[in-house]
Formats: sequence, C-alpha cells, structure tokens
Amino acid sequence: MTGKHFYHALALTSTLLLSACTSTENASPHARQLALISEQAMSSDLAYQVVKSLTVEVGPRIAGSEGDKRAVLWAENKFKELGFDKIYKEPVRVRNWSRGIADAKVISPYQQKLFISALGGSVATPEGGLITQVVMFDSLASLKQAETASVQGKIVFINQRMQRDRAGKGYGPVVIGRSQGAIEAAKLGAKAVLIRSVGTDNSRFAHTGVMQYSEKVEKIPAGALSNADADNLEAMLAASKDVTLAVEMRAKEHGWQTSYNVIGEFTGSEHPEEIVLIGAHLDSWDEGTGALDDGAGVGIVTGAAKLINSLTGQPKRTIRVVLYASEEFGLTGAQEYTRRHKAELGNIIVAAESDFGAGEIYQIDTLFAPDALQAAKPLFTALARIGVKQGNNQAGGGPDVSMLPKHGVPVVSLLQDGTYYFDYHHTANDTLDKVDPKSLAQSQAAYALLTYFMANADVDTRPAPASESPSH
Amino acid sequence: MTGKHFYHALALTSTLLLSACTSTENASPHARQLALISEQAMSSDLAYQVVKSLTVEVGPRIAGSEGDKRAVLWAENKFKELGFDKIYKEPVRVRNWSRGIADAKVISPYQQKLFISALGGSVATPEGGLITQVVMFDSLASLKQAETASVQGKIVFINQRMQRDRAGKGYGPVVIGRSQGAIEAAKLGAKAVLIRSVGTDNSRFAHTGVMQYSEKVEKIPAGALSNADADNLEAMLAASKDVTLAVEMRAKEHGWQTSYNVIGEFTGSEHPEEIVLIGAHLDSWDEGTGALDDGAGVGIVTGAAKLINSLTGQPKRTIRVVLYASEEFGLTGAQEYTRRHKAELGNIIVAAESDFGAGEIYQIDTLFAPDALQAAKPLFTALARIGVKQGNNQAGGGPDVSMLPKHGVPVVSLLQDGTYYFDYHHTANDTLDKVDPKSLAQSQAAYALLTYFMANADVDTRPAPASESPSH
Repeated sequence: MTGKHFYHALALTSTLLLSACTSTENASPHARQLALISEQAMSSDLAYQVVKSLTVEVGPRIAGSEGDKRAVLWAENKFKELGFDKIYKEPVRVRNWSRGIADAKVISPYQQKLFISALGGSVATPEGGLITQVVMFDSLASLKQAETASVQGKIVFINQRMQRDRAGKGYGPVVIGRSQGAIEAAKLGAKAVLIRSVGTDNSRFAHTGVMQYSEKVEKIPAGALSNADADNLEAMLAASKDVTLAVEMRAKEHGWQTSYNVIGEFTGSEHPEEIVLIGAHLDSWDEGTGALDDGAGVGIVTGAAKLINSLTGQPKRTIRVVLYASEEFGLTGAQEYTRRHKAELGNIIVAAESDFGAGEIYQIDTLFAPDALQAAKPLFTALARIGVKQGNNQAGGGPDVSMLPKHGVPVVSLLQDGTYYFDYHHTANDTLDKVDPKSLAQSQAAYALLTYFMANADVDTRPAPASESPSH
Repeated sequence: MTGKHFYHALALTSTLLLSACTSTENASPHARQLALISEQAMSSDLAYQVVKSLTVEVGPRIAGSEGDKRAVLWAENKFKELGFDKIYKEPVRVRNWSRGIADAKVISPYQQKLFISALGGSVATPEGGLITQVVMFDSLASLKQAETASVQGKIVFINQRMQRDRAGKGYGPVVIGRSQGAIEAAKLGAKAVLIRSVGTDNSRFAHTGVMQYSEKVEKIPAGALSNADADNLEAMLAASKDVTLAVEMRAKEHGWQTSYNVIGEFTGSEHPEEIVLIGAHLDSWDEGTGALDDGAGVGIVTGAAKLINSLTGQPKRTIRVVLYASEEFGLTGAQEYTRRHKAELGNIIVAAESDFGAGEIYQIDTLFAPDALQAAKPLFTALARIGVKQGNNQAGGGPDVSMLPKHGVPVVSLLQDGTYYFDYHHTANDTLDKVDPKSLAQSQAAYALLTYFMANADVDTRPAPASESPSH
C-alpha cells in the first residue's frame, strides 16, 4: 500500500489531517513512509500474535528455569520465522530462585487462610514454619522509627496501599517497602516481613517482585499479602492487637545458571555499524504467563522491527531488537549487555525499552543531544497523529537501557498508559486476556515510527546529555 | 427522625418527589413510616457491618466444616447483640465435603500450570493423578452428541463461556455443564471433566459450585478451569489436537454432619403467629470468605429487620430472619426448614431470600394472590422512590424459599443488579472489598420496606397462585 492510498482512505473524514500530512510531506522525505508504517502497524495484529505465541507456547519463564530455557529457544525461532537477517544470543549468568510453597494463615483471634506470594529472592521459613504475633506499620518509614521491643520476635506487616496512576507514579513510594522491608524488619529482630501487595487491584492474588537483603543483618523470609487479605488482616488488627499468624515458605536458591540475551537484527544498508536498539525483557515472574510483563514488550518491539522491514525494506542503520535476560532479578542481562558491548555503545543512535504492559502510548520523552530535537520533528509529528505527544528531554529509556545514558547513549521513553498495569503486574493474573489487542497495536505503531525514523532519517541524537532526573 | 424531617431534607432539590410523598401519605397510614425506614436504611451501614463481621471473624464456612460451626455461633451472637427477641437454631444434617488439593497442568505440547478448582462434591482422582489427552466441546449439548470413541479414556473439556447480564441470565445455560458434565462425560467413558468456569471475569481464579453424579454411571473427577486458563487451553487445542493434561484432585467426603438453620425474630404484637420470613444462607464455599455469597444477604436481611425494630418498634406480625444451612450443597437447610415447619407454612404472609450479592435492587417481582397487588400499592410506591420498579407476579423468591410457593406461600423476589456478581461468585475472590457499601444499603432499604409493610399493613397476600415460570 502506498502513501496515496492512505490519504485516500482518510479523505472523507480527515481533510484537516490530510493537509497536515501533505505539508509535513514537503518538509520530510520520510513522511510517506511514516504514514504507511503508522497505518499498517495500527491495524496489524503481529505484536499480539507474538505475545500470544510466547504466553501459550512458553508461559512462565523465571530466570534460569526450564521455562526460561524454552523462552530463549522460542525467541531464536521467532526471529527466524519473521526473517530477521542476523540472530544470535549472548550468555548471561543469572540467579535461579524458586518460590516453593508459600502459606499463611491467621491462628488467632480468628482462623483464616491468607493468600501470599513469596517475594523474589526471599529465604525460606525455618522447617515447619513460623507461628508468632504480627505487628503492623503503615509504611517502611514508620517501621524504621519503631523500637526493637515492639518488633522483636514478631512478623512485621507493612500495610501501605499503592495509588492508581496513569504513569505508575504510585509504585515508587510503596515498592521501597518491598525491596527494603526485610532489611529494616530484621534490624529490629523481626522473624519475617509481610507487605501489602504493591498493586492497585482488589484481587486475592498477591504481587511478587524482587527484594533485597543486606549482608549485615539476618536474612528473614519476606512475602506479599493480596490486597484483599491485607484488608482482612488490617480489620482484625483494628479489633485486636493480639493477632497471631502461621507462615510457611519453602523458597530456594539454585545457584547461578546460564541464560541468554537473544538478539535479532535487520542490518543497515548504509551504516550497518550504527544501531537503533529497541528492547524488552524475555524473562518473567513465575506466577502468571508474563503477558503484560513483558510479553507485551516483546511483541511490540519484535512486531515493530518486522513491520518496518516488510513495509519499507532494509533500513539504512541497523535495527537491533534485544530481548534481555533476567530483568526481574536485578537487570542482569542488561548489565551483561552493557559490559559486552562497551566498545560499540557509541554507535547506538537511540535505545528504548518497552516494559510497561500493553496500554496505549501517550507521550514520548527523549534524552537527545538538544540540537537533534529539531531534526526529529517529523517523528514527533507522526507520533502526534496516533495520540503521542512530545514530552521532556529527560527520558530514562526503560529499566534495561537505563544504564546506557551514562555512556552517552541517547534513549527514548514511549510512555504507556499504566492505569491498570499494576492490577496484574507480578501476579498469577498476568495472562493474555489482559492484553488489549488494539492498544497493543498502537504501541507497536509508536515503536515502529520511532525505529523507522531513527534508522533512516538524517538525524544524530548523540551524545545524550547528562540527566539528573530520568522521567521513567 | 420524623417524616417531616425527611421531606425537609429533600425540599430544595425534590419538590416533585415531595408532592408525590404527600399525596401517598394521604392514601396510606404507613407512608410516613415507610419514608422514615427508607431514609434511615439507605444511610445505615448496619448491613455492611454485619457482612464485615461475618467475613473477618468467621470467613469461609462450607457446610459441616469448623468454619460453619463458627458461623452458627456467630449468627446466634449477632442476633443477640442486635436485640432480636427470639433466637433459636434448628438442626440440619449436611453433607461435609472438602476439596483438598486440585492441580492441573499441560504436559504436552507445552508444559504449563492450569489453575483449577474442584467442583463441589467431586470425587478425587486416582492416587497419583491422571495423565491423558484432553478433548474439547463447546457445550454440554455437544458433548451429549459425541461418539464414545472420541471421548473414551480422555479428559473432557467443556468450553462454554458465560455471558454478562444484569439479571444473571447467562448463568442457567452454562451451569448445566457444571452440574451434568461429569455424568455425560462418564457415559462416554471419560476419565475426568474440566469445565470453563461459570463466571464472567477474566481472572485466574476458577469458580467452584456444586455438581451431580448419577448412580448409573461411574463417578469421575470434575473441576473448573479459570477463564484465563480455559483461554490458554483453547489456544493450545487450536494449534494441536494432541494436548495432554495431568490432573490431580484429592477431594473427600466426610459423611453427614449436623449444622443449623439459625433464626432470629421480632415477635408480632397483634398477630405473632403470622410470619414475614426474610432469609439468606449462612454457609459459603470454602474458597473465598463468602462476602457476596451470601454474607451480603445475611447483612441485608439482618440489617433490615433490626432497623425496622429500632425505627418503628414491635411489628404487628412476626418478622423472622432465617439464615439457612447448606444452601450450596443442595438447599439442605431449606428442605429441612420446609419439613419441620410444614404445619405453619400457611401462616407465612410472605417469604423472600437475598442471595445475589450486593448490587442495587432494581425490581420487585411478587407471587401474591392477585387481589393483594392493589393493597400492596403503598409498598410499590415506596420502593419506586429508591429505584425499585414493580415487575411481574411470577416471583420465585430465591433458592431457599423456592420450595414454599407449592405450599401456597407467597414470595417476593427483590432483583439485584448482578452485572459483576459472577466475576467473583464461588471463587477465592469473593471477599469484603467486592461489597459496595452504598448499594448494599439500598438493598437493605428495599428489604426493610418490604418487611415493614408486610408485617404491619392490612394486606394478605395468601395463597400464592400456582406459577409455571418463576422469574428468579
């Protein structure tokens, strides 16, 4: 399909849009291709088919597991099937942890089961579990101010609720309790820590996620209560200070395993050494099938690269799709990528990761050399047509590319609507039915526009300016 | 607070409503009391506090379990605390079944866990579980038409999706697969049956519910897949006819136990022998805390009765709140109630059960002697003011009172908005946070209006006409 057809299709309803297109076309040799890519990517189910294939054929794929190994094979095969011209994988040493069972119940004053999930990396409880009183705090900050006497020998319950927000701004202030809760509780002599799930739903599924220990204090078991069970426990504690829990967790470390960053490329015709890097992470938590986190990202960047190649042929610069290993357990794949590719980081024109579910993209933040912003106008114009407005020039780029800007690598954050992302994130409920094919296709289109433009236009965004406050 | 205050509060915004009230007041000696009850019940959190108390202090209470025993004690204490003047319990022999573990996974072509719930009353799998091919049908009707050769030795998967509907009309056509699936699958030599959950959500929680066996065919294990897992299995079966599952269930029958219908009354001052019966069921499934099913009903009818007594004193007829045992396992409590009270069934002026969650009531259906409909006009007028319109005269009354009309007992169905009821019904997700306090209070008000009017007005609805097609 040509640009002309595209204009024709829109003619009846979008005369104003048409003139905008035409005038941009005069301004940029890429406007027709951008319009074509946008139209096709918006209506293509390729990203959805990729997520579907990954979730149905592989499913859960926690780093170092059998599922992870199958995911690596799946990724290589998917790149082959889609005609990427260079496909390779790079070994990454990943931590392999398994959750085993995680049971909790109230023993007194009432007997009730509580739904929990072990936090990623937690140690097990002693054989036979723990039975002890619970003490509640409204945040990590409150816990830090507690006296040892009130915590010693007890289970700490951090009861802070995450607020819903399009940009996921509710996550940061609460997730600190997940990552640091076990350390702070152990300092005061607690036997274990349970947090209210870092999630915006009212489901009975608890939200897992990685947690940390300090070498300086005892490692105590750490879990998350579902929001519904946190409500229940909170109500019990409002009625009685003397609430006793039994908790048993059989989490286990299996040492370090080899996984892989899996990479697929469409090689540049004019500047094969210059790289437009779009990424997502291949690993997932073990509870769900990793549809939103990060199957959606895998679908979006894979679909975007493939569509560009199908619609506009070989790019001038190399398009590199990186599917990172072990994002969930500390960005291990991204660190290995950065180490291994250090010498060529200067060749990366731009890097961007999709790792925020399947919602619509509403904003593009950049971290470009300021002079490049003007040259990127045709991209911003094309993005605006699918509802993506230009934001700030302080982008972080996404978790796995977040360590690149300090090496001067420009990054882009295509901000996705995350209003409902934290309803499902890191739970058993992260499954394919939560992916809206239409908004996924819009995200695919935004990535395709970004990637096409950066791979073909006469624009150089390097070096990234120093940024003090990444937006994402 | 008097009727005058009520009118005053509404005066600024509701002049039209005010004149409607005033004119009705002329027509009925009960209009002021109805207005008072309506206003107070709409803003009272009593029903909510009752549900909260039951779910927090008792939680799951499957018939015959320890939780059920605690629930009986809780109900007696709650009636006492609220000042019911007659409180008693009547023994009911109930079936006691426990689900034990219920695990399922796909073995090939892909290895993935499936979330299932044993159907209520199912037998266990053989020791060590079953490993065999799965064969899919789109409904029970399709299964019935299958040839033995295509089913023999396999697991039958009935993949029929329930449609969302305010009145829950999607339930009937699908639940037949839950109740009859094991019988029909066993007739064809199947090893087990798994149904797509009878629920309108896309959660990973499967919906349990009672199922039946026939003495004439082998009893095979029966479970429900979560909707998300049914999607996943459906996608696998679309890609390959050869899908193998492993299923293990350790459900168990523990014989018959004694539970109780728990009854609280406000005795009538003029006609103590005449009874207005409002009911709900005290038992719940074991997966959630039984907040919607049927904690909400318990809260609504208990709150309604108590509020009438507080606001208008002793009723002329007796108000009897019946909290039935073992509704979920075949209405055993209701059958026992009917048997035990046979001689006095003719004294029941009206019976109604609340067992459809916590949504707003939008319609009243009746099953009254036709002459009584005119006399009940003040009730319909009062209900209309809180959004409840008059429906038909073919009410069923709710599951536990559904066997009364054949004895001439008039019944009422106050139809609740069930749009989201089947998202949570019979799952672990049936917890207090799903109860909207505002719509619960509206339901409490509707029951209070019905109960006050029937207990105090000069209206006799007996005998119920024969009804061929109960509406609910």
